[in-house]
Amino acid sequence: MLNEKMIGLGSAPNDIRALFAYGLARKAEIGEDKVFDFSIGNPSVPAPAEVSATIKRLLDEEDPVALHSYTPSPGRFETRKAVADHLSRHFDIAAKPEQVYITSGASSSLAISFKAVACEGEEVIVPSPYFTEYKTWVEATGASIVEVPCLEPSFQLDVPAIEAAITPRTAAIVVNSPNNPVGAVYTKESLERLAAVLARKEQEFGTSIYLIADEPYRAITYGKEVPFIPTIYARTILCYSFSKTLSLPGERLGFIYVSDLMENPQETTYAIQGAGRSLGYICCSALWQRVLEECIELPTDVEAYRVNREILTKGLSELGYEYVEPNGAFYLWVKALEPDAVAFSNRAKDFELLFCPSDGFGGKGWFRLSYCIARETIENSLPAFAALKKAYDDQA
Amino acid sequence: MLNEKMIGLGSAPNDIRALFAYGLARKAEIGEDKVFDFSIGNPSVPAPAEVSATIKRLLDEEDPVALHSYTPSPGRFETRKAVADHLSRHFDIAAKPEQVYITSGASSSLAISFKAVACEGEEVIVPSPYFTEYKTWVEATGASIVEVPCLEPSFQLDVPAIEAAITPRTAAIVVNSPNNPVGAVYTKESLERLAAVLARKEQEFGTSIYLIADEPYRAITYGKEVPFIPTIYARTILCYSFSKTLSLPGERLGFIYVSDLMENPQETTYAIQGAGRSLGYICCSALWQRVLEECIELPTDVEAYRVNREILTKGLSELGYEYVEPNGAFYLWVKALEPDAVAFSNRAKDFELLFCPSDGFGGKGWFRLSYCIARETIENSLPAFAALKKAYDDQA
Repeated sequence: MLNEKMIGLGSAPNDIRALFAYGLARKAEIGEDKVFDFSIGNPSVPAPAEVSATIKRLLDEEDPVALHSYTPSPGRFETRKAVADHLSRHFDIAAKPEQVYITSGASSSLAISFKAVACEGEEVIVPSPYFTEYKTWVEATGASIVEVPCLEPSFQLDVPAIEAAITPRTAAIVVNSPNNPVGAVYTKESLERLAAVLARKEQEFGTSIYLIADEPYRAITYGKEVPFIPTIYARTILCYSFSKTLSLPGERLGFIYVSDLMENPQETTYAIQGAGRSLGYICCSALWQRVLEECIELPTDVEAYRVNREILTKGLSELGYEYVEPNGAFYLWVKALEPDAVAFSNRAKDFELLFCPSDGFGGKGWFRLSYCIARETIENSLPAFAALKKAYDDQA
Repeated sequence: MLNEKMIGLGSAPNDIRALFAYGLARKAEIGEDKVFDFSIGNPSVPAPAEVSATIKRLLDEEDPVALHSYTPSPGRFETRKAVADHLSRHFDIAAKPEQVYITSGASSSLAISFKAVACEGEEVIVPSPYFTEYKTWVEATGASIVEVPCLEPSFQLDVPAIEAAITPRTAAIVVNSPNNPVGAVYTKESLERLAAVLARKEQEFGTSIYLIADEPYRAITYGKEVPFIPTIYARTILCYSFSKTLSLPGERLGFIYVSDLMENPQETTYAIQGAGRSLGYICCSALWQRVLEECIELPTDVEAYRVNREILTKGLSELGYEYVEPNGAFYLWVKALEPDAVAFSNRAKDFELLFCPSDGFGGKGWFRLSYCIARETIENSLPAFAALKKAYDDQA
């Protein structure tokens, strides 16, 4: 029998992708430069030139049979070692390749991690607003999500509220910093308070609570330090992706790192490997694994995003929009001009402004601007934002 | 809480991969040329030269942002169209791109298809022997597998036994032809009988029974026609991979085609798309999708496998081994020289012969030889097969 839940998931694609599709159609209709599409997080900076050069060299120099053959499911040992060495070098830890599992990007890192640590009937705490697909992947394990709103207007973690939400059924908590959709970076102090709460609750309930650190935007920041969570809370599973930092979103390249600092990391790593197997992963593209070995230390080019961020925050600020100080990622979280953010976002379409209302992220009254787009689009969008504001002011 | 099932799957990798790992260690110990490793199906023929040429051209000519950006989850429209056109051209059907879903290889095609059509408590019929991971992926949906042994010694489908195994809980049946591990190609006549049985049982129970056609070896045959199942049974989901036919196993490239001939294929396609989303797939590597568009019509080079097959079957035949006539894929299914195939395969290790006993495929008393290996390995292995036979003859 067809699985009704799957029909539901397949026939109603997530809001972001639906808006993105609307944008493509609208551009075809009235012209690319007339639509201001802030809907999706597709990096606008090209991948570093070394990526192409590495691929060409591999194709020229390597035996094609070996180059394209199956790798072990967790990845080539050399690739896992490159990741472990990278982590050790940057975060002053002793990461072992055995605890690294190469994945097909963040989605796969997260779906596998949830499957490994959550069972039927359990709960996963998700600070809100949050990346919508967490819910899809948590529910696929038979567990459910428990949303805990962040503090407004800073959108930092509300640690006492998280503490109150933890029950004996809590399997994990997701921490996404720099944050999508808000652009917030969680402070070291708040993460230390969270770690203390998790440890206390583990002891109180005699359970294990995993912290799943979802960090695809780690390298995209504007001055603020992004604390390395495994050294703050031992039972951490780090989920990473090179989609944003190497501008390779369509290539599906990431990893899971089970912190060596937790007790018996091998058991958790087995659960990760088993979850990958269960979800139908054999290995990440062998060619892309080789590219990663060569390119993992390349710096992320954030200059374009920094410029966009300046233009956008300055422009919106002058127009009187309120937003959360964006310390990382390439998202700006802005207060809608009416309480119903869906209605507001729909009205914005009349001004050819496309952005996602907070509702799809589990929040109310805000909207998300992805500013990983062409600078001119941002510059040219400001009169539309002005007109939108005026429409609301005139009405008041 | 860690998921115990996942720990189990992760800590006990499948038998084939375990034997493959033993082979690598043994080769390092006594020399590559002293070990005769027939364990794994890693193609020994290089990918066509056009694959490298296409990648280089794409890297040189395309905008890197567009080249590596997210594609729609079911794949680029152009890639889906290339697959649909390929199917239409070769099998005289009118396949629509909308019913094609590009996947990360056969594993992902199958895990997604099972998730789409099987629900908790249902059953999936699997003719045995079979590729071991079917069980992992079916059980991941909450359904269970029902093994129906094939007819010995032809190893064709036992249609009356399949009919007897169908219940109101039957969600699907898997048909894998050319077959792994046996190398059999199912006849058109047996598939027509199967289709009639499925249709009759659907009517009797008022249910829908999907036929999941797992066909990664379709292009690797030695003269026999491989019937195209969607034109025999309408409710067919075709799972394909380019791992074997383009020699790209590590790159993870395949597709699912929901037959346009079934009633309301769109609903099934939605379930496929939802299942992919639920399992954490975003899209298959964008670069590899582009390669597929260019390379889908390249012929598969089966000449090396044909030569290996000749040498191996002639050699084993002269030594008195019994085997199933191999009509497709690159596997030979041989009768063990004692009833316990596991004991037999372990004894063969004393002769440096590595192959998988039938038990791991849900069969008894046979073993599988993967002959997608160097010709010299096969030639040099024959004295070892002779010595193994002599050891059993002397004992008798």
